Amino acid sequence: MTQAHALIFDVFGTLVDWHGSIRRELQATLVEGLGLPLDAASLATAWRAQYQPAMQEVRSGQRAFCDLDVLHRRNLDVVLNDAGVGTAVDEAARQHLVRAWHRLQAWPEVGEALALLRQRFLLAPCSNGHIALMVALARHNAWHWDAVLGAELARDYKPQPIVYTTACRALGLAPAQVMMVACHSSDLAAAAAAGLQCGFIARPEEGGPGVGETAPACPVQAQAADLRQLAQRLLAQA
Amino acid sequence: MTQAHALIFDVFGTLVDWHGSIRRELQATLVEGLGLPLDAASLATAWRAQYQPAMQEVRSGQRAFCDLDVLHRRNLDVVLNDAGVGTAVDEAARQHLVRAWHRLQAWPEVGEALALLRQRFLLAPCSNGHIALMVALARHNAWHWDAVLGAELARDYKPQPIVYTTACRALGLAPAQVMMVACHSSDLAAAAAAGLQCGFIARPEEGGPGVGETAPACPVQAQAADLRQLAQRLLAQA
Repeated sequence: MTQAHALIFDVFGTLVDWHGSIRRELQATLVEGLGLPLDAASLATAWRAQYQPAMQEVRSGQRAFCDLDVLHRRNLDVVLNDAGVGTAVDEAARQHLVRAWHRLQAWPEVGEALALLRQRFLLAPCSNGHIALMVALARHNAWHWDAVLGAELARDYKPQPIVYTTACRALGLAPAQVMMVACHSSDLAAAAAAGLQCGFIARPEEGGPGVGETAPACPVQAQAADLRQLAQRLLAQA
Repeated sequence: MTQAHALIFDVFGTLVDWHGSIRRELQATLVEGLGLPLDAASLATAWRAQYQPAMQEVRSGQRAFCDLDVLHRRNLDVVLNDAGVGTAVDEAARQHLVRAWHRLQAWPEVGEALALLRQRFLLAPCSNGHIALMVALARHNAWHWDAVLGAELARDYKPQPIVYTTACRALGLAPAQVMMVACHSSDLAAAAAAGLQCGFIARPEEGGPGVGETAPACPVQAQAADLRQLAQRLLAQA
């Protein structure tokens, strides 16, 4: 298999520390700001646990495509009710927390690694996050994408094959010329089924301490402990 | 009217010198390479003249959305036949010339002006060119877009309103928060009808010597002699 011309990236978990970022925002807004007796780490996990079921309604055709701001808001309302604080959190705080997903912090090595990779490859996110959210994260973390691909362009959510194939077609490349990079084996297995190459990076703390994959559960063309190491390996091959 | 948060750009003519670039490529490939007795400037104009009718088939619903590589190729075949050299130009030369649209040169001030504007505004192309073509032009001219918007995202061609409104929605902005920048009044009038702000820049040589607009034929919120001057004016307002 020849080397890919483009790398497309999962973002939540793979490039940004969603759990740590959301935990800090929940702590600041709900615990410190509103004085609510909540465990921010557990609430971050609970919020994210609503994510796949919400997207499944779109994938199944039960619900028209809508973006993650809409799904994050609906899911936040659910978990605040479940936590017994449904009446204690006002509209402004909820809107602020939905926007927290636009301010997620990158893992430390990501910015430098993307800049290195950009010397050799076309780079684009292929995330379930919508374009405006990806634009915000790129500004927040000083990334330079060639294009913003993913769910909004395909009008469906990963792991639906159309999300991967639409990204490849948008770059004018065959799937075999594109490598999907992710820390989730389920994402990579779906990309591989659509004909893409796969690169795995470990994020052992993705969902909080000890919650994250350390090795791929599917065949991959490259794997590494983080994005810097993946960049070194891919650049050494060419 | 408050200042826009984002600027979206027409590309062919507004940011790149399509006529000069295509003329040089036709001269190199057909006149110097194949020794054909053609006037490259006239042929560039003839090729571009096929552009609007080809897109109209998509706009009218007569033809499913297809990208500009497809339309440029079909149009090239037409103009080579019309020029009487239909049998003298081989497949490789035709493919090379279609790809010439991925190598168009920016007008001289564009790179520096975009870098300045990026300090204040989100920036994206809103072109009838597809994503892969925009990615190639950005690499070729060292531009940094926040996202690549336009025809491919909307699955239709400007001046259809959906192309402008889809671009705004992708940025998470209302049309009034976005300025369309172009050297074509027809593009700006359509953007204005969709609720966007408009910025005109003059490109008096867009289609060759003396062929280009020097002033807008519709109301605009900003106008300038080139993109550097537009950047200076917009940055001075804020």
